[in-house]
Amino acid sequence: MKKIFILGSTGSIGTNTLDVIRNYPDRFKVETLTVNSNIELLEKQIKEFNPSLVVVRNEKSAEQLKRSLGNSIEVLSGDKGLIEATRRNNYDILVSALVGFAGLAPTIEGIKLSKRIALANKETLVVAGELITALCKECNSELVPVDSEHSAIFQCLVGEKSPEVKKLILTASGGPFLHHSSESLKNVSVAEALNHPNWKMGSKVTIDSASMMNKGLEVIEAQWLFGIEKEKIEVVVHPQSIVHSMVEFIDGSIKAQMGLPDMRLPIQYALSYPERLCGYLPQTKLPEIRDLSFFEPDYKKFECLKLAYQAIECGGTAPCILNAANEIAVGKFLEGSIRFLQIPEIIKKALNAIENHRGPDINTIFDCDRQTREFASKLS
Amino acid sequence: MKKIFILGSTGSIGTNTLDVIRNYPDRFKVETLTVNSNIELLEKQIKEFNPSLVVVRNEKSAEQLKRSLGNSIEVLSGDKGLIEATRRNNYDILVSALVGFAGLAPTIEGIKLSKRIALANKETLVVAGELITALCKECNSELVPVDSEHSAIFQCLVGEKSPEVKKLILTASGGPFLHHSSESLKNVSVAEALNHPNWKMGSKVTIDSASMMNKGLEVIEAQWLFGIEKEKIEVVVHPQSIVHSMVEFIDGSIKAQMGLPDMRLPIQYALSYPERLCGYLPQTKLPEIRDLSFFEPDYKKFECLKLAYQAIECGGTAPCILNAANEIAVGKFLEGSIRFLQIPEIIKKALNAIENHRGPDINTIFDCDRQTREFASKLS
Repeated sequence: MKKIFILGSTGSIGTNTLDVIRNYPDRFKVETLTVNSNIELLEKQIKEFNPSLVVVRNEKSAEQLKRSLGNSIEVLSGDKGLIEATRRNNYDILVSALVGFAGLAPTIEGIKLSKRIALANKETLVVAGELITALCKECNSELVPVDSEHSAIFQCLVGEKSPEVKKLILTASGGPFLHHSSESLKNVSVAEALNHPNWKMGSKVTIDSASMMNKGLEVIEAQWLFGIEKEKIEVVVHPQSIVHSMVEFIDGSIKAQMGLPDMRLPIQYALSYPERLCGYLPQTKLPEIRDLSFFEPDYKKFECLKLAYQAIECGGTAPCILNAANEIAVGKFLEGSIRFLQIPEIIKKALNAIENHRGPDINTIFDCDRQTREFASKLS
Repeated sequence: MKKIFILGSTGSIGTNTLDVIRNYPDRFKVETLTVNSNIELLEKQIKEFNPSLVVVRNEKSAEQLKRSLGNSIEVLSGDKGLIEATRRNNYDILVSALVGFAGLAPTIEGIKLSKRIALANKETLVVAGELITALCKECNSELVPVDSEHSAIFQCLVGEKSPEVKKLILTASGGPFLHHSSESLKNVSVAEALNHPNWKMGSKVTIDSASMMNKGLEVIEAQWLFGIEKEKIEVVVHPQSIVHSMVEFIDGSIKAQMGLPDMRLPIQYALSYPERLCGYLPQTKLPEIRDLSFFEPDYKKFECLKLAYQAIECGGTAPCILNAANEIAVGKFLEGSIRFLQIPEIIKKALNAIENHRGPDINTIFDCDRQTREFASKLS
């Protein structure tokens, strides 16, 4: 029986994780749940899964929840509560499913306790890949990816030897704007950008998918997760999202992992690895899907993807700047204060303006993140 | 340095195996070559690869070769010579690449010597799967498949646990008649049947591809090779022959192995496993291939495939009868004495007429094979 800590239990990954746990009550037990402010859904989750501890980041919502629950369960609050909870040694697997940079600090606490990290928060590796992978090694903590692409690669690598890997091939759906012209991207609406053809995800990730920044962040993540140079990571557009990603080996053989687009599969694998659990998920029938297609990505149209490769090239805090500027820009786009193509513009300005620090320690990364956010917030 | 014995060095698998060896002179050394009667090509192979022993099955050709070579190399002849050569303990890997039932007896000798068998001769497992897998276990001999489909499955299973396998999915190109109507199959010519869209193979296998008997034999082979029930082996038509086969696991995840249709890749893997060798083979570029498609096979049109499933269902010597009748029927079709759709007719008649023996020993299998051939030869 594995005890599970979910960072971000009311988000898309969080609720899907709880659905997996619901189906394997003999294998997994919810120990801790954390939310930002959605205490209405959290109360339902508490009733069903009976955790021993919950954290509500928003202080007001935390107070409200305490009043509602009385003394039946321990409630912590704020970023301090989040850190305190992750430091308790009462869980086996930390599902790191906060959105954005906020996931970094609590994930580090899980690593320090040598826990398995089921990593859905890609920013952890994007902004602090070098530090995090070194810390994992030092603390003997295991990072198992939850992203469908990285889970696919992780699965394709089972039983294979890393020196025999020639290339990682990340598939990208291409998002809602795959067939739009560069020109028509200028005036797309928030609703259009949120209308992902295959995946139901949170709004930040969905916008990143539309701009293909999501794939850029995944390239950076893959670099650290699998210890491989960026030259060996390729992106291929695959609109059906059935092939979740591939590995090419030195002998020319390619292995792919496939399935219907359903986050519960990689989540379940991250919890059960190295075992596979008998599935309750819908079956993938290739003759019903019929066609799988593959294209080169259009780096000119999807400038964010190009910027991500450039950030890896620059190294140091460049990926942190890229990520922070993107988070701010996506927020602005979602609230309607900038247009879609201003997202890469803001990122470019930040990459040019903010100083790049080589081999940053964790404080430098936090400083860089804050500084970039301040800078990007002022742009429009 | 692995010493290689090639059973059938002038056939399609044999020459491809020599091409692999040509590219890794530091890893593989040709020890023994055997041919049926093509001594012209054999002489060239002797010059290039300098084996210590050759076998020519046809006695006349063997005499001719001896006269030509003098005492420079040992030449054995006939089926007796074949068995004698495989019994010598001077090789590490036996590449079993004879066509048809003839491959069985010498392959057994390799197994008895605990050699690795790079198995291209599917009939070995089709007619004697139960016996052969038991013998491999007893003699600690390793069967590594060379067929692209079985190699794909073998690769997908690396690092995975067999109880977690839900299904093997064998892909089939569908051959040259994929889009023909059942009606138009009646009058196809030998040349049309030999015109395979993707693979260059020997004529027997190419006709089996056109009738989809090849896939039927592969289902039987897979059953023994991977110790899995026929209900868990599925056939999917995939005209591009890029996905060589797949494994579905109990959690719903599917792994596929892909590559351009080139037999040198699975041959090389069978020789180098568990290592992968740095490839000299052309790279697979999915964006250039663009589309992969998948269909259910048409069991009505391709009756041979249905007959193969029926033979597994019957068990005992039924697969042996199926195989022998098919070999005779394909021979007749190639020489122009029957039409294409008479192939399944002859097989059906043999399956109905020849007695099925349960749990056959090797002599029963040889008897059944001979009896079926006699019976089928008389049909037209």
